[in-house]
Amino acid sequence: MKKIITISREYGSGGRIIGKKIAENLGYNFYDREIIDMAAEDSGLSPEFIEKTEQNISSGWLYNLLLGTSYAGTTAGATTQQIGTQSLPLADQVFNAERKTILSLTDKPSVIVGRCADYILRTSDTVDSKDLLNIFIYADFDDKVKRIMERQSMDEKAARKAVQQVDKCRANHYNTFTEDTWGDRKIYDLLVNSSTLGIDQTIEMLTAFIQKT
Amino acid sequence: MKKIITISREYGSGGRIIGKKIAENLGYNFYDREIIDMAAEDSGLSPEFIEKTEQNISSGWLYNLLLGTSYAGTTAGATTQQIGTQSLPLADQVFNAERKTILSLTDKPSVIVGRCADYILRTSDTVDSKDLLNIFIYADFDDKVKRIMERQSMDEKAARKAVQQVDKCRANHYNTFTEDTWGDRKIYDLLVNSSTLGIDQTIEMLTAFIQKT
Repeated sequence: MKKIITISREYGSGGRIIGKKIAENLGYNFYDREIIDMAAEDSGLSPEFIEKTEQNISSGWLYNLLLGTSYAGTTAGATTQQIGTQSLPLADQVFNAERKTILSLTDKPSVIVGRCADYILRTSDTVDSKDLLNIFIYADFDDKVKRIMERQSMDEKAARKAVQQVDKCRANHYNTFTEDTWGDRKIYDLLVNSSTLGIDQTIEMLTAFIQKT
Repeated sequence: MKKIITISREYGSGGRIIGKKIAENLGYNFYDREIIDMAAEDSGLSPEFIEKTEQNISSGWLYNLLLGTSYAGTTAGATTQQIGTQSLPLADQVFNAERKTILSLTDKPSVIVGRCADYILRTSDTVDSKDLLNIFIYADFDDKVKRIMERQSMDEKAARKAVQQVDKCRANHYNTFTEDTWGDRKIYDLLVNSSTLGIDQTIEMLTAFIQKT
């Protein structure tokens, strides 16, 4: 069975919860936003700055949307100002901080969501490609909108806009920092539409798939 | 369980044999090249002409490669001449002949390989989208080359060229005759790299996946 599972996912596809449950099923460690906090601690950058930079987010409403719920309670004043003058070296700094964190996780069986982990691990000298399995999770547009409306308590119009925009940011970030293309089948072992079977059955199917590797 | 399974596949990925075995496992009808002969019979066009036209093949060596083994024994003299003066209406005629054939198959549970079947069925008024499942099978480049070398008794150089060229022809044909893009995840329920589990385990996995739908 492959030791390191990376999950790339469309926004609203349920990729995070699918990854979390797969990790539980397999007894693997699970990393998603945890990587942001770990990279922040190691690098001295703020978690908000890392999150905004890693997703290449330029518009205020998207920033509030993504960080509003997950980092409520932190004060982002100075960080926001810092983001305003973001330069390429700073973005590189964030990528490298996350890269180091991701590479430090691979001594134990793990499921890692997002953060270019597939590319970082594929191109690393320290990880055997035989240990690596890369999965991409997507979903029907309407299902993604519905999930974001529920999860972020958003109206439909805002959710539709978010679903359209966030993946553009993710692709943009991935394509800037890697030589590959986000969502291109040739860098994944499997791409699955979570709308076809629904979340629970997709988790079951993927768990069985990983167990066969 | 979904009634109509379409399989799109990269050249050399094992998609045909995977589809055939899945159909056997499920007790479904199986159609691949059979569609060419059925469309030929219905339309009066020759099978060779249909095959060359459907893949948008322009170079002689690729023509010999693809038709040499499957249609050895038929005389293609007049047809080849006809292909030389191929016009868009003729290509349309082939597409429509195959379209009619494909739509006539859907009263029984079936696995259909290639031939834009996913698009033809998705956009048809007579097929309920709830009955339709679309799968894309791809593979690592080296595995595809190896499979083509064995299957077509070809040397490595020719096989590498064929693997690179045939999918371009397939994509070109698909993208010309549909509003979608060949290989774009959003038109499929699942895309799987057959190199990850190997052919036999991929068949098992896909059979289980379809049974859950």
